[in-house]
Order: sequence, then structure tokens, then C-alpha cells
Amino acid sequence: MKPVKVGICGLGTVGSGTFNVLHRNADEISRRAGRRITVEQIGSRRDNPGCDTKGTQVTRDIFDVATNPEIDIVVELIGGYDIARELVMTAIENGKHVVTANKALIAVHGNEIFEAAQRHNVMVAFEASVAGGIPVIKAIREGLSANNIEWLAGIINGTGNFILTEMRDKGRDFADVLAEAQALGYAEADPTFDVEGIDAAHKLTILASIAFGIPLQFDKAYTEGISAITPADVEYAEELGYRIKHLGISRRTEHGIELRVHPTMIPTSTLLANVNGVMNAVLVDGDAVGQTLYYGAGAGAEPTASAVVADIVDVVRTLTADRDNRVPHLAFQPSELSDLPILPMSDTETGFYLRLQAAEKPGVLASITKILGDNGINIEAIVQKETAEEQVPVILLTQRVQEQKMNEAITAIEALDDIIGQVTRIRVEHLQG
Amino acid sequence: MKPVKVGICGLGTVGSGTFNVLHRNADEISRRAGRRITVEQIGSRRDNPGCDTKGTQVTRDIFDVATNPEIDIVVELIGGYDIARELVMTAIENGKHVVTANKALIAVHGNEIFEAAQRHNVMVAFEASVAGGIPVIKAIREGLSANNIEWLAGIINGTGNFILTEMRDKGRDFADVLAEAQALGYAEADPTFDVEGIDAAHKLTILASIAFGIPLQFDKAYTEGISAITPADVEYAEELGYRIKHLGISRRTEHGIELRVHPTMIPTSTLLANVNGVMNAVLVDGDAVGQTLYYGAGAGAEPTASAVVADIVDVVRTLTADRDNRVPHLAFQPSELSDLPILPMSDTETGFYLRLQAAEKPGVLASITKILGDNGINIEAIVQKETAEEQVPVILLTQRVQEQKMNEAITAIEALDDIIGQVTRIRVEHLQG
Repeated sequence: MKPVKVGICGLGTVGSGTFNVLHRNADEISRRAGRRITVEQIGSRRDNPGCDTKGTQVTRDIFDVATNPEIDIVVELIGGYDIARELVMTAIENGKHVVTANKALIAVHGNEIFEAAQRHNVMVAFEASVAGGIPVIKAIREGLSANNIEWLAGIINGTGNFILTEMRDKGRDFADVLAEAQALGYAEADPTFDVEGIDAAHKLTILASIAFGIPLQFDKAYTEGISAITPADVEYAEELGYRIKHLGISRRTEHGIELRVHPTMIPTSTLLANVNGVMNAVLVDGDAVGQTLYYGAGAGAEPTASAVVADIVDVVRTLTADRDNRVPHLAFQPSELSDLPILPMSDTETGFYLRLQAAEKPGVLASITKILGDNGINIEAIVQKETAEEQVPVILLTQRVQEQKMNEAITAIEALDDIIGQVTRIRVEHLQG
Repeated sequence: MKPVKVGICGLGTVGSGTFNVLHRNADEISRRAGRRITVEQIGSRRDNPGCDTKGTQVTRDIFDVATNPEIDIVVELIGGYDIARELVMTAIENGKHVVTANKALIAVHGNEIFEAAQRHNVMVAFEASVAGGIPVIKAIREGLSANNIEWLAGIINGTGNFILTEMRDKGRDFADVLAEAQALGYAEADPTFDVEGIDAAHKLTILASIAFGIPLQFDKAYTEGISAITPADVEYAEELGYRIKHLGISRRTEHGIELRVHPTMIPTSTLLANVNGVMNAVLVDGDAVGQTLYYGAGAGAEPTASAVVADIVDVVRTLTADRDNRVPHLAFQPSELSDLPILPMSDTETGFYLRLQAAEKPGVLASITKILGDNGINIEAIVQKETAEEQVPVILLTQRVQEQKMNEAITAIEALDDIIGQVTRIRVEHLQG
């Protein structure tokens, strides 16, 4: 069979990784795919010294690639929203299949892009957009297709996980580790996307859609970062048998879908609690299979390229397939997406870790527990730390309760005379059932 | 589109699980697959009380199913070798696609079955044959298709892992835990397949073929069980920072493929060391992606059914696809399989844990270390246990060395006058690089 011709747009980290893997493993890949996959053209504003493109056509205008009649598959690796969207739409309108690693693009413009792809009878593959090299989209979309998926929880931002791992291992504080992560190149100069959970929310939005068959709704995701986590909370968590991870969690309930990214205390004995450094992992709970977990590198040139190239091979394999037999973009047939709403954060349910500073006076604990009880909140553990100060830190763990009730309880607790400052809250998940 | 008609052969644990999942999740599954999947006929020698088959055609002769002209996909869940082989071949010759959970069948007769499937232009899907509900065949065969896979290591027998977990957690001995596992229904009345590693070797044979693109060669797998593991070894391992797991390991080397199942000491800090109880996990190292891990339930009615049904959906999706565009049975095109040989065990390379009983005399340790040195074996650690006895246990950890050299060293050590009995050896893997 004649080779499949690929055009790569963007020759940064992932673009050069993709080019290099396609070259280095060309034989291995074509032994699998049944035909050669060649890079026909590269579109990039500049060369990349890590990438020997000699013999490959290079253009400075990525739109040349999207309209090149020789090209079968356009690989979008430029990142960002607007130009990427225009590029992908142009490729689709020119009848090209598209492979992208761009989570922001898919989370925000995916519905529109998939609709266009459907109309033009092309595929848009995006395995690399979530959790880098881990084939987790394939696992959920195809491997778990028998299941009613109940929930999923993932460590889907390597920078955030690196920071939390360092804070725990070395007792360091957030700002200190962030500075190191930036020096090491793990974190961007503007780390907001990573540490405030926006990047994770992009990925979670995609995972939730393919797990539950709902349209992409990034704007409805609840997002809370890790910048407020203190070494004290990390330590108290460990004492209680928990570890703080920055998780993206999505759960199906009767009334809607929970879609939330926030620091989460999980039992230290769980595998997810033991995913360290920049590594990613996604835990999925399905009604038939139970829990499955997918672990690996969530970023980096070649791990991400691994997913990009796997997508290219998948597209190659379905080039002659009937549209109706393809794996649907969002796992479910476009006509079969559910209108189950995304729940507002106040309607979600978790356990809670609360830390507060109380004046060392009799009756303070009683006041706190009364407020919790009045709001229907059951306490699982209370730890009052010994101290020489006049204020004592009080730590509480609660059972699962609706966020709204906890908000009300916290407001009431903070209004107590003997409580100093604000209550620190971290949500708790046991990752069971 | 009209429904796809499935025939289920065998209504035991997995058969009834498959029937139940197909019924309970029928809507969810057809929202994904784009068409209904109905059970047209069941072939089973007896009914299963866990399965309400009212309204479904049931035959006592499974071959009725394999030849039923109404049926598109035959699901083989009877287990075993000969009748299963005949059933699957009959189905293939009748132009049916086949889905099977039968690891023994695929490991032993897979080459012949795939050849027949190719000839008759049908698919044989076998995700459920390895690691139950974990979509690890899909992950390796499709999700990692960009990679030159270097090695893989898996906990792929739940019974064995349950026994080793109990031995470690509770200091119990092998026979004691095995008896409990049998009482709990985890282990068969004849536990040989599980505890002697035959079941794991079947699965490893399949994983190695799809990872490295080699024909199935079960007869060349090295298989060593866990029945000789003692509580003392479990405890020494932990002291040294290792845990004993029963792993299936396959590694590509310059000269051939290692294919071996044996008790293995791995660092306790690795995720694989923390996979407990009946759970399974497979760690795969690819040159582009690095390490990825897949974790979940390796057995049980519905976890296995999850994989069976996912295979059915996959087959449904490719019903109209051109044969050349399908995912090849063994990941690589049939004409592109490699003739890289399976290495004899003596040519494989691992680290070693050695435990021996030495007379408490000066010079014994010197004799042992000299023998190891003469055989080019580097020692990483020596622990000599304090004891009131005249014999002392000596524990050694070595660096990686060819098995043949270790065999020679052990023979020489056992010949020493001051060594009592045999040397216990457990292979060590760091699961790195």
C-alpha cells in the first residue's frame, strides 16, 4: 500500500518528539500499521536544533500544511486556542484527518471541531491531549465500552504533582518548590495554568465527556489550585493516613455530573497516593470492571509523541472505514450524547478536612461540633494539637456531605468569637465504591 | 442499523457475567457502538442460576452456536484446550468473528487460529485472556504502537498475588494461605495452574507476542511457581527494601526475547510492589513513552465480561472494515512477525537474592564471595544474621548477571563443606531502564 502522508504543524517539544519517533521507529511502526507513514511537510515558524529535518519540506506557514493536497493527516502541535482552532478547522474543511495534543483546544472548541469533522467525514484524534503518553482516552473510550462508568479521578498535571511530592518528601513550602520547578523547566514562567488547575480542568473536561457521554463543558468545571496548601496541612494529612494530591474528579450522580479540580486528601495506601513526581495516573471506576488505573508520563517530548503517533496509526487503520463504524470522538455516538447537567460545586459531595485556630478556652470544641451536627455533618476524627500558645490548631475530618452544607457550617464556625482567622478546608475522597 | 447478533458458548462465571453486562448496560453499550448488540443464542451444557436467560434461545450443543447462520460473533467462554479449539475453528470456518477469554487456547493454539481467521477474513479478539478487565492488550497493541517496546513485567495471576500479599501482611506460610484461597474460591481445587505459574505463562506468552511481534511460543516460556517461597524470604526481602511478587517478565535483548515467570524481588517503592491481593497490573517500558502501568481486576465474572464486551464492540466497529485496516491479531502484520528467538533461561540476566545456611566458622564468607567473584558476579549487599545456632543464615544481593554464571556459582557454593543444604535463590529486578 502507498505511504500515508503526514504534515506536522509546530516543531516545539512535542513536534520534534513526534518527528523523531516517526523516523527512529519507522520500521516498527509500519510493521504494525501495514504501511509506511511519512512526514510530507512540516509547518513551523522556526527550526528546532533537536530535529534533523533535512530532506523534509518545511514551510513557515502552517496553513500551507492544512491545505496541502498531498497530505492525508494534519498533526496540530502549535498549542493555544485561536490559531490552533483556525488551523484545525481549515484542515477539516480540506478533508484532512487531524491529530492534536492540544487539551485547551479540545476542551474549549471540541464540540464545534467534532461537529465539523463529522460533517466532512474526517477523524480528529486527541489521545495526547490528556495524560501525555498514557493511552487513557483509548482505554476509557474503547477498553471500558461495556461499562456504565461511575467516576474517575486523576493526577493529570505533572507540575502540580511534582510540587506536592516535593512538599511532602522534604517539608518544603509551595513557593520554594515552584521556583525550583521553574528552574528545572517543569513549570512555565507563568505557572497559573498548572498550579491553579486550569490545565487539569481542560483534561478533566475531556475525560468526563468520553466517560459519561456528555458534550465538552470546560466553562462549568470547578477549578481550585494548590498554591494555598501549606507544609502543615501536608504533615497533618500524613498523620491522619492521607496524602494531598491535586486531582481532577468527575462523578456521575442522579442529578448530574460532578466536574471538579481541587487539592484532595486520599488514603496513603491507595495507588494514586503513591504516584509521585511528574508522573500522571487516572483511576476509573466502572460498574462491570470495578477500578482500573492507568499510569505513566503525562508530558515530555517523546511520551507525548508516543500518543500522537499512536493516534496517527489509528487514523491510518480507519482510512477506508465507514464513518458509522469509527470510534466516536466522544466515545458515544454524536446523536446519543446525554444532557445530564454539570452540577454546581455546591451540590457536590465529599468528605472534608478542616483546620482552624481556636482560642484555648473550654467550650470551643463543643461549639464547633454543634454547628457541624446542626448542618447534618458527621465527624470522623478530631485532633487538637498540644501547644504552648494561647491558640490551638484543631483538625477535623468529616464524612461525606454536600458542599453547600459545609459552606454554611464554615461560615457559622468562622463567626464564633473564639475562632481566629479563616477555616482551611481540603476535600477528602476515599476513592471507593 | 440492524442489531449485531452474538452467540455465547459457556455459561459459567464469565459467560453469565457477559450475558448480564450485555443486558444491564445494553443502552450504554449501543450509545457507544452505534447499534444494538443482542444475544441470539447461548450454548451451555447447563443453566446458570445467576443468569436469567428467559427469552433467549439456549442450546446444549455449543457447536449449534458456531454454525448458526443468524450469528455474527461467537463468544467462546468454555475454557480449556481441545474442545475450545475445535469450537473456535468451526466458528471461523463458518465465517463468524470470535471473541474469547481463553488464555490457554490463545497461548497454545493462537498461531493456528489467527492464520485460519486471516484466511477466512474474520477477527479473533482476546482482550479478556490477559489480566481480566484491564484493557492491556489494547494499550500495548494500539496505544503504544509508536514504541519499540523494551520490556514488560506483570502481576498477571490474582491467586498468586493474593497468596504473596497475605504471606507478607500476616507472616503466614504458603500452604496455609493457599488453603484459605481455596476456601474463598480464589484458587481452584487443583491450584497448579495458578501457583506454579502456568496460567501466568499463558498470559505472558500473549503479551510478549503483541509487544515484540513474535509468534506465540508458550512451550519456550520458563515457568517457576511460588510454592517454595518461605515467610523468612518474604521478611528478609522487606528488610532489604524489596517485596516478592510473582511476575511474568519479557524483555527484548540483542540476542533474543526473555520470556519467564518466577518469583521476583522488586523495590517496595515501585507501584508494582504495591499491587495487592487479587489485583493485577502490567508495567510496560517503551522507548518513546517510558514506563506505563495498567492496573485492575484480573479475574471475576464482570471484570472479565467487561473485556469480552469491549472486544465485541471492537469487532462490531470493524465489521465493514477492510481486512488490511484492522488491528493485526498480534499487533504486527502477520507477514512482519520477527524470528527473534526466545532465549533459554540460562541466557537471561537478572540480579539475585541468595539465602544460604553456613557453618559459623571463619572464612566461610570469604569462600562464598571468592566463588561469586570468580564467576564475575558483583555483590550489592551481604547480611549475616545473628543467631545462637551453629549455622547462620547468610543473605546476599547481587548485581545483574547471566543466569548461567549464577548456576555455576551456586553449584560451587553448595559444594563447600561449610554450606548446609541448598542455596535459595530469588531473582531481583529493579524495573528500571
